[in-house]
Amino acid sequence: MGIPDEKIHPVATGVAIKTVEKHQEPQELVFYSGWFCPFNQRTWISLEEKGIPYQYKEVNPYKKEKHFLDINPKGLVPAIEYRGKALYESIILCEFLEDAYPSHKPHLLPVDPFDRAHARIWIDHCTKTIVSATHRLLQSQDKESQDNAREELYAAQRKLAKEVKGPYFNGEEFGLVDICVAPWIARDYVVAEHRGYKREDASKEWKEYADRLSQRESVVKTMSEREHLNVIYDRYLRDEAQSEAAKATRAGREIP
Amino acid sequence: MGIPDEKIHPVATGVAIKTVEKHQEPQELVFYSGWFCPFNQRTWISLEEKGIPYQYKEVNPYKKEKHFLDINPKGLVPAIEYRGKALYESIILCEFLEDAYPSHKPHLLPVDPFDRAHARIWIDHCTKTIVSATHRLLQSQDKESQDNAREELYAAQRKLAKEVKGPYFNGEEFGLVDICVAPWIARDYVVAEHRGYKREDASKEWKEYADRLSQRESVVKTMSEREHLNVIYDRYLRDEAQSEAAKATRAGREIP
Ligand SMILES: N[C@@H](CCC(=O)N[C@@H](CS)C(=O)NCC(=O)O)C(=O)O
Ligand SMILES: N[C@@H](CCC(=O)N[C@@H](CS)C(=O)NCC(=O)O)C(=O)O
Repeated sequence: MGIPDEKIHPVATGVAIKTVEKHQEPQELVFYSGWFCPFNQRTWISLEEKGIPYQYKEVNPYKKEKHFLDINPKGLVPAIEYRGKALYESIILCEFLEDAYPSHKPHLLPVDPFDRAHARIWIDHCTKTIVSATHRLLQSQDKESQDNAREELYAAQRKLAKEVKGPYFNGEEFGLVDICVAPWIARDYVVAEHRGYKREDASKEWKEYADRLSQRESVVKTMSEREHLNVIYDRYLRDEAQSEAAKATRAGREIP
Repeated sequence: MGIPDEKIHPVATGVAIKTVEKHQEPQELVFYSGWFCPFNQRTWISLEEKGIPYQYKEVNPYKKEKHFLDINPKGLVPAIEYRGKALYESIILCEFLEDAYPSHKPHLLPVDPFDRAHARIWIDHCTKTIVSATHRLLQSQDKESQDNAREELYAAQRKLAKEVKGPYFNGEEFGLVDICVAPWIARDYVVAEHRGYKREDASKEWKEYADRLSQRESVVKTMSEREHLNVIYDRYLRDEAQSEAAKATRAGREIP
């Protein structure tokens, strides 16, 4: 195969490698992680926030190694093994952590059924609009498409910001809506440097919320060094990335 | 606006209108429903299965009427109002019904956290692969794209069928995976008549599962007459439908 995405830096770096080093002992929950992946970071943040014991194992999902495909047939990180049984899909994993470790705080979703459904609507919004607009903005090669994608991204962020009770989506407790969007905020410096993106151009409320999330301890300590992330994003910016998400965006398909 | 999709038959027909007639009294849960919509049918089936008291109100979502946009700013059915507060998105609504009416059976999701996450993986599969492949199959105008879409659909159905414990996804109890896919099964006669689709060409297991789901009482009693559905599907088959989903499929975007 030898696609360029296979050659990513093999391990987490910076603050994140310290977090990795603390989670080497065998546990009933094994976290199959790609250090660079924003979806992956959702699950990682949830594990850290809730203080769940986990064993960290680095995976390069682009290699599609048999041992990993046995865990996630889609070949995507994040994935986990819990008491020897596999699960995947970032948000499903976060909901699983909430269900399987109910006494660990913070509660990622509100207990009230209505508030819980309301949070899920905005989690869905993050994935459907913020994630896909970011991909289009990164991968678009001409000015017009970039301008359109940037405006779509601003609109999506503005909408979400209006729903934030403050300081976090649900009020005082940091939760799953915050977790779902935080990894894209932590990486928005890429579109700021290369695509004319500015947090404050979404809205003042968005900028405040984004600044707050990017400083949250669990977000900071699951981020690797930009130098290594940039190698990956440079391929997105030239629209040469071969990830499933990049290919889907190029082909006008759903991001898997 | 006057787009053709506005001119759909105004009310449910056939078996479904009898179900509608039983749910006219005011209740704390109001179901804003489009009789023709498969996403909508997921929520309707859940309400019927669990025997939740609800008031049925028909909405034509293509009209984007102000009173409805106040309930769902996306302007899509299904939506509900619960004690005066609005929620939308079919699967989120089904999960809400489970959370808000925990003593009503069947339980749409397993209680065990692992099994629950496993079910959610396959719910996600239904929406991401079966729904989008069906749309591509319906809307494709040339043979090659139709052949590709049909093969994608078969592959997605075959995968799901392998996970079915039998008789239903989770075993004896009918649940949310079954509910998520049933509306597309109930409408697969359209691609059977116009796109060379055959249940048994997915797999023997798929055919058995699909036959079973299409006969489930809650599925049958939420289906209107084909004659009225066909008017809508004829526009999809000519790729002239103006629904958000049709436009997204045409533009190579995520189905909203
Ligand atoms: N829907 C998935 C998406 C996960 C995903 O796309 N992960 C990427 C890394 S950021 C991956 O594993 N890519 C491997 C590939 O594209 O081949 C989730 O939410 O977990
Ligand atoms: N993701 C939504 C999709 C709902 C949806 O697309 N509903 C269609 C009818 S089948 C609708 O309301 N369309 C109005 C429009 O496209 O303007 C859900 O699962 O509830």
